[in-house]
Order: sequence, then structure tokens, then C-alpha cells
Amino acid sequence: MAESFNLDSYVRKVPDFPKKGILFYDITSVLGRPEAFRYCIKAMADRYRGQGIDAVAAIEARGFLFAAPFAEQLGIPLVLIRKKGKLPGETRSKKYQLEYGEAEIEVHTADIKPGARVLLTDDLVATGGTLRAARELLTECGASVPEIFGVIGLPFLRYEKALAPTPVFTLIQYHGE
Amino acid sequence: MAESFNLDSYVRKVPDFPKKGILFYDITSVLGRPEAFRYCIKAMADRYRGQGIDAVAAIEARGFLFAAPFAEQLGIPLVLIRKKGKLPGETRSKKYQLEYGEAEIEVHTADIKPGARVLLTDDLVATGGTLRAARELLTECGASVPEIFGVIGLPFLRYEKALAPTPVFTLIQYHGE
Repeated sequence: MAESFNLDSYVRKVPDFPKKGILFYDITSVLGRPEAFRYCIKAMADRYRGQGIDAVAAIEARGFLFAAPFAEQLGIPLVLIRKKGKLPGETRSKKYQLEYGEAEIEVHTADIKPGARVLLTDDLVATGGTLRAARELLTECGASVPEIFGVIGLPFLRYEKALAPTPVFTLIQYHGE
Repeated sequence: MAESFNLDSYVRKVPDFPKKGILFYDITSVLGRPEAFRYCIKAMADRYRGQGIDAVAAIEARGFLFAAPFAEQLGIPLVLIRKKGKLPGETRSKKYQLEYGEAEIEVHTADIKPGARVLLTDDLVATGGTLRAARELLTECGASVPEIFGVIGLPFLRYEKALAPTPVFTLIQYHGE
């Protein structure tokens, strides 16, 4: 895949969403253009194929959109990390702080094989708060997380510090607003 | 793909979830087995490739899991139908009744091209309430919905009546509890 693919031109920027002062990077405009969606999935597959990744974990809900085709192409299990109360089996859950209040995510414990190398993914990496909680869930279940993948990264929100020492790889980065 | 593939053996049945008396058909056990997930995506692609489908619409959140690889394989746009408040652009929304209370879903109006033939999909087709509201959203935006697809169908909940005259196709059906 040529590095010259202009993914930025497919990402819609929406000011003041979900609230005033926030510039929202919208991936629905990527999903709506097959050449851009395929670029993202191919870039993921090219990076991680043959790297000994045993499974891919995806954060509800937009993270499902990229992890699912990736899992299908690589032929590896897809593990869902969902908001509390959505998974019917035995789960392990974790609360974490949001800007206001807190949230809770969980994973099916049986979906994680002890010793597995699990790639953790989402569409967008911002503060890294949810991803950090997700990584802790995975490691508490006995997995290792060799890297975190996002389509879009917002490094000015300091996710690299929040997620250290796990490396974070993103296809495109935006630097401030 | 052989019809003898035993998809049923990959669907976990969880009694009393999300509440007592409900038998929950869990697709995370399909996602965890690459051969089963690939079977589902291939079955979708085989059925709809070359049928003049212009886009695929998916219901948040589990519907994303099957529609995304399908859209990527067919090279067609993926349209998200989300819970209210998640989509940043101009939307059209619709309220509908649940067993208790009501829910509201919406779609980006710009994602629907007037005259487009849009396949509407979800992981599970039960009463058809959400899918009916989603079909109305799509048709109000000028699309037609030639068929509704689900991985699992529960025809005893009478979705065929709720969704008539649109045909519903599912990979596997369960008949009562």
C-alpha cells in the first residue's frame, strides 16, 4: 500500500461535537468510501500478519468496525470489550475515570487464553483512558498486549504517556485543534 | 461453502440473559472461532455479490461486526445506524417502542444516496422492532431495502410479520425455547 494514500482527505472534521470546543474526527466518512476503508484494513493486515498475534480485541462500538474485517482477513479470534452488562458469559470488568464520572468495561474471561498475544484496537486513540483499562483487563486475564492500534491518533492528548510502556501505532495523527 | 457447515455448534446459548426466562444466542463464540466467522462473512458475500446492492447498513453495535467485513469484501459503503447522539453530522432519527419504554436510532442523511439499494443487516433478528425503525429511516432518506439480513433468526418472535413486505434472510434459525 503506497504511503501516499491520503487518508486525511477521507476523515471528516466536525467542530463542536459532542460539545462546544471539541473537534471530532469522524470515521463514518471513511466507511462510506470503500477505497479508504480497504486502505485501513490492508494497512492493519500488512503490519500485523506474521507477527505472532493470537487474537485481536476491539473496543465497543466503533472499534468493532476495523477489528472485525482485520480478524476475518488474518483468521484470528476477535475478542469484544464491551460496556458493562452486554456480555452474557462469565466476565471480568474494570471501572475507569472519565472527564466526568466513570465508566465500566468488561470482557469474557473465556475469550482470553493465558499467554496469548492480543492486539488491542480502537478507531481513535485520544486520552487512552478506555484503552488503558482494556489493556489491564486483558493482562489480568493472562494475555500480553504487544501493541495498541488505532486508525486515528491524537497525540496532543498524551495517550503515549497514558499507555506506556505499550507502543501505540496509528495510521494518521492530528496535532491539536 | 458447504451447507453442511454446522454454524449452530458455534453459537453459545446462555439461559436467563439478559433476564430470567430469556435464552440468549451469543455470537461472541462465533467471533472467537475464525472458521465460523469466515463462514458467515462468505455466506453474506456469496448471497449478495452481483445483486446490485449499493451499500450495507448495520445496526449498532453487534451488527457492525458482520457488516464491516462484508462491506470491505464487496467494496461497498458501510452505513451506520446508531443510538441517538453518536453521529456528528446531519442526521435523521426515529423513535420506536421497546417492550418497556422507547429507543431512538439515527443515520447520517448524507450517507444515503436517493435511489440506492441498501442491504439492512444485524447479527440477530428477533421481534424486528429496531430493524423496522431502521428500514423506515433508510426509506425516508430515499433508499430502498431489498432484503434484511441477519446471522441468526428467531422466527417464533414473528419478525417476518413485523418486517413485511421486506424479505428477511438469516443463516440459522431457532424455533422457540
